[in-house]
Amino acid sequence: MKYKLLVAYDGTDFGGWQFQDNAPSIQEHIEKALSTALRTSISIVGSGRTDSGVHALAQVAHFSYDAEIVPMRLLLSLNALLPHTIRILDVTSAPEDFHAIYSAKGKLYTYHLRLDKQENPFNRLHCYRPLYPVNLPLLKEAAAHFVGTHDFTSFANQADVGSAAKNAVRTIHRLDVIDEEGGVRLEFQGTGFLYKMVRNIMGTLLEISSGKIPLETLPEIFAAKDRRRAGQTAPARGLFLTQVFY
Amino acid sequence: MKYKLLVAYDGTDFGGWQFQDNAPSIQEHIEKALSTALRTSISIVGSGRTDSGVHALAQVAHFSYDAEIVPMRLLLSLNALLPHTIRILDVTSAPEDFHAIYSAKGKLYTYHLRLDKQENPFNRLHCYRPLYPVNLPLLKEAAAHFVGTHDFTSFANQADVGSAAKNAVRTIHRLDVIDEEGGVRLEFQGTGFLYKMVRNIMGTLLEISSGKIPLETLPEIFAAKDRRRAGQTAPARGLFLTQVFY
Repeated sequence: MKYKLLVAYDGTDFGGWQFQDNAPSIQEHIEKALSTALRTSISIVGSGRTDSGVHALAQVAHFSYDAEIVPMRLLLSLNALLPHTIRILDVTSAPEDFHAIYSAKGKLYTYHLRLDKQENPFNRLHCYRPLYPVNLPLLKEAAAHFVGTHDFTSFANQADVGSAAKNAVRTIHRLDVIDEEGGVRLEFQGTGFLYKMVRNIMGTLLEISSGKIPLETLPEIFAAKDRRRAGQTAPARGLFLTQVFY
Repeated sequence: MKYKLLVAYDGTDFGGWQFQDNAPSIQEHIEKALSTALRTSISIVGSGRTDSGVHALAQVAHFSYDAEIVPMRLLLSLNALLPHTIRILDVTSAPEDFHAIYSAKGKLYTYHLRLDKQENPFNRLHCYRPLYPVNLPLLKEAAAHFVGTHDFTSFANQADVGSAAKNAVRTIHRLDVIDEEGGVRLEFQGTGFLYKMVRNIMGTLLEISSGKIPLETLPEIFAAKDRRRAGQTAPARGLFLTQVFY
């Protein structure tokens, strides 16, 4: 039988969803807790790998298990076994053909940008506050250029370059810049994202908004299909996997 | 000359504003940074001591220093020297007769109560989520009984009992229960608060709302002037010193 997990995590102290940087991964923690709770070795498949330091409000993962489970009981056991920075929000049974990666129709990522004068001691690990000035109207204008279907090779990092060279065409349905307390959040909704694509777009938007990259060169950056032409990767701590659509 | 500091801090990792629990205090950190920045030993006086684990959005402190300072330069130096969980929000010069404690006309404390089904991995150190059910209408009804001028001996902890026995009369101007995402926040505004008074009122409200303390016994609890009659001290992590009025 197949089961689905809905998971929230603060990525700060982990080496990402999968093993990275010699730090324990979120997937490892959940597999260990599941194996303890169900008394048999369990592997899980997440909808995608979030990098070290990236957070999730609602990551989705599936696993197979031979017997019936009582979802609420398993949820309580897992949350008792897991660190407080990883929380299971829901356990449900899923159709046999459900697959966390292949059944996903789209994803919503959110990036929190603080623009106030002072660093906030409470959310500093869940946002990014650039030290240089941000021209918000320019950032909004630039964001609009990423919406639609494009070849995003210039915004994909090395790990994907082999496959990306063949197929780096992705569709971003919306990239909204929404005012919130102390800054803005950017909502990236699309069918799928290449490795580090959201953070590379974010970093490029910041370099455009600070005047380092001229807005009018953006078509050339897309056309170049060269990661070195785009902006730097924005810090992981501002990024949240907010929703996976099935 | 006298100077005023506006300070925000995440109290999680500190032993309170003043020395407590063998952990470094926020006051010590700021005095050390000030002494380094101004190259002379500086002592500060805060508007009040917050306990270990209690946070502040806008604590006020004053200090004396013989020379002119450039406020913005000192602010940048202090924030460069301090841990990221303590932030100086403002440095201003103050009248010679200004005193952080004695000039204060009132304070606003905020307590964040989460009432959602699941612990949130992001704000768990900045709120309290009771494990037992909370009857919110009953909690609101009980909160109204604390507004006004009362003898709060039953809600003051030992450290103040000597003085509190003589004068534990305080005025709470408002105690509002305000809906917010995932729960409520309680705003306690008053002329002054005894040692642990906000957390003891909060704990009593929670025990009333869960049915452990009957609401109708509240007048007797006030009249008893006995700390043992009221509820337990609510956890520090939900409490913020939000504003000091001068």
